[in-house]
Amino acid sequence: MIDRLIEKIKQTGNPSVIGLDTRPDFVPSGMSPLEFNCAVIDAVKDIVPAVKVQIACYELYGIEGLKAFAGTLKYARESGLIVMTDAKRGDIGSTAENYSGAFLGQSTEFDSDFLTVNGYLGSDGVLPFVADCKKFGKGIFVLVKTSNPSSAEIQDKVADGLPVYGHMAQLVSEWGKDLIGKYGYSSVGAVVGATYPEQARRLREMFPSVFFLVPGYGAQGGTAADAAVNFDANGLGAIVNSSRAILTAYRKDKYKGLTFAAAAREAAIEMRDDLRKHI
Amino acid sequence: MIDRLIEKIKQTGNPSVIGLDTRPDFVPSGMSPLEFNCAVIDAVKDIVPAVKVQIACYELYGIEGLKAFAGTLKYARESGLIVMTDAKRGDIGSTAENYSGAFLGQSTEFDSDFLTVNGYLGSDGVLPFVADCKKFGKGIFVLVKTSNPSSAEIQDKVADGLPVYGHMAQLVSEWGKDLIGKYGYSSVGAVVGATYPEQARRLREMFPSVFFLVPGYGAQGGTAADAAVNFDANGLGAIVNSSRAILTAYRKDKYKGLTFAAAAREAAIEMRDDLRKHI
Repeated sequence: MIDRLIEKIKQTGNPSVIGLDTRPDFVPSGMSPLEFNCAVIDAVKDIVPAVKVQIACYELYGIEGLKAFAGTLKYARESGLIVMTDAKRGDIGSTAENYSGAFLGQSTEFDSDFLTVNGYLGSDGVLPFVADCKKFGKGIFVLVKTSNPSSAEIQDKVADGLPVYGHMAQLVSEWGKDLIGKYGYSSVGAVVGATYPEQARRLREMFPSVFFLVPGYGAQGGTAADAAVNFDANGLGAIVNSSRAILTAYRKDKYKGLTFAAAAREAAIEMRDDLRKHI
Repeated sequence: MIDRLIEKIKQTGNPSVIGLDTRPDFVPSGMSPLEFNCAVIDAVKDIVPAVKVQIACYELYGIEGLKAFAGTLKYARESGLIVMTDAKRGDIGSTAENYSGAFLGQSTEFDSDFLTVNGYLGSDGVLPFVADCKKFGKGIFVLVKTSNPSSAEIQDKVADGLPVYGHMAQLVSEWGKDLIGKYGYSSVGAVVGATYPEQARRLREMFPSVFFLVPGYGAQGGTAADAAVNFDANGLGAIVNSSRAILTAYRKDKYKGLTFAAAAREAAIEMRDDLRKHI
């Protein structure tokens, strides 16, 4: 799966992913979140390799919300995009099997190409996802160093000379060692926030086979220069996410007069060019 | 909320919670998982204070599965039980708000009295849940030391003289300090596995205001003696979960001839008495 993502990144010349973290207040009145998402997908599908759908925004609205979530995944896949579900699931082995089946098994409504996973429980909580990556040609991104302000509280604690996020990255590298594709990257990747470039730089050096999903660009304060440290010398090895800045671009002065979909496209192009300049 | 749980534990004389981690292969043929759950609830509602519903078992079956999940929560609440959702959610602040709204906000299909939370992201990923605990009279249990075999990989790493799970417990204690009820326990509790009694004993001593949700009893290998160390001198401070051993009791030789619901009741009584003997 990581090879398909990398090929799509090369084909579009764009190492970014649009986050469909669609809140009702982002959506123009008279329109449903699913209609909004489909219009955004139509507007960006030829210029971005992937979309990432944050399930929390849909879970909040119960069954109806999750129908919109499922509809968004389906429409994105049919539009030729790689589909990532951002759900940060994680549990003991037997439960992790269920979560993995829900998102990485092939015949479900929530079928996704990639899933974000929380590895706090350790190997037996993650290996069921890895097994499905192998079986169904999927991928995961395990939380390593997250983009939020208080991520240091647990993740930066230093044990045996390495911060907790470093230990997590080591596990990620180990979990993914049998799933390395032709570009040298594994389908078992890591979430590394754009807001902590120093830490990201070190992780990039230490774990050359781990592909990074990089949130925190834009609304959370990470710049393209910050995000750039996640890439290797060939300009590969990472994909940068932006959500709010793309979905609400139509409210910005500089996109005045554009529809939300056209504004999203312009903002996505601007992000692509901003990243290209710095990688 | 913690006071309501403790009062219900006192009233039933039973510090245990039945986990409705209902897999299709647990359910007799011709019956739906929701019907199965409702029958189990009917059979145990006068002898247990609470049920815990593992959402992964339902998420695996997409929209239909989540309808059964929502129906189970509703039926349990209407039956007078305290309702816990085991979802181990966690994300950056703005997303955590959405998860919290989904499970702890008052007007949703997934409305729960308690929710399990993963605190790997630190304070800003957990405080939205805490705010809703305060606002809506709910509670959370944050993963501290989980019951699974490889929980040591991250959780037992020692930093500044304390394992990671100890740091997490310290944060839990801090997050919950404004939500301590009349029994001295906070509505912000911790998940502490019955399979690690040494660690649990230490946590019980160090964090006297943190209430423990204790998985791992029964099918995962934890005994009543193991679970007992999570309780204080008054026999309070924890609630022990059992799922599979209760739901599949009807397959055991000793409950031969009983319906699945009657067998679940017998197994729940046996667990209650086993715990009482050791606390």
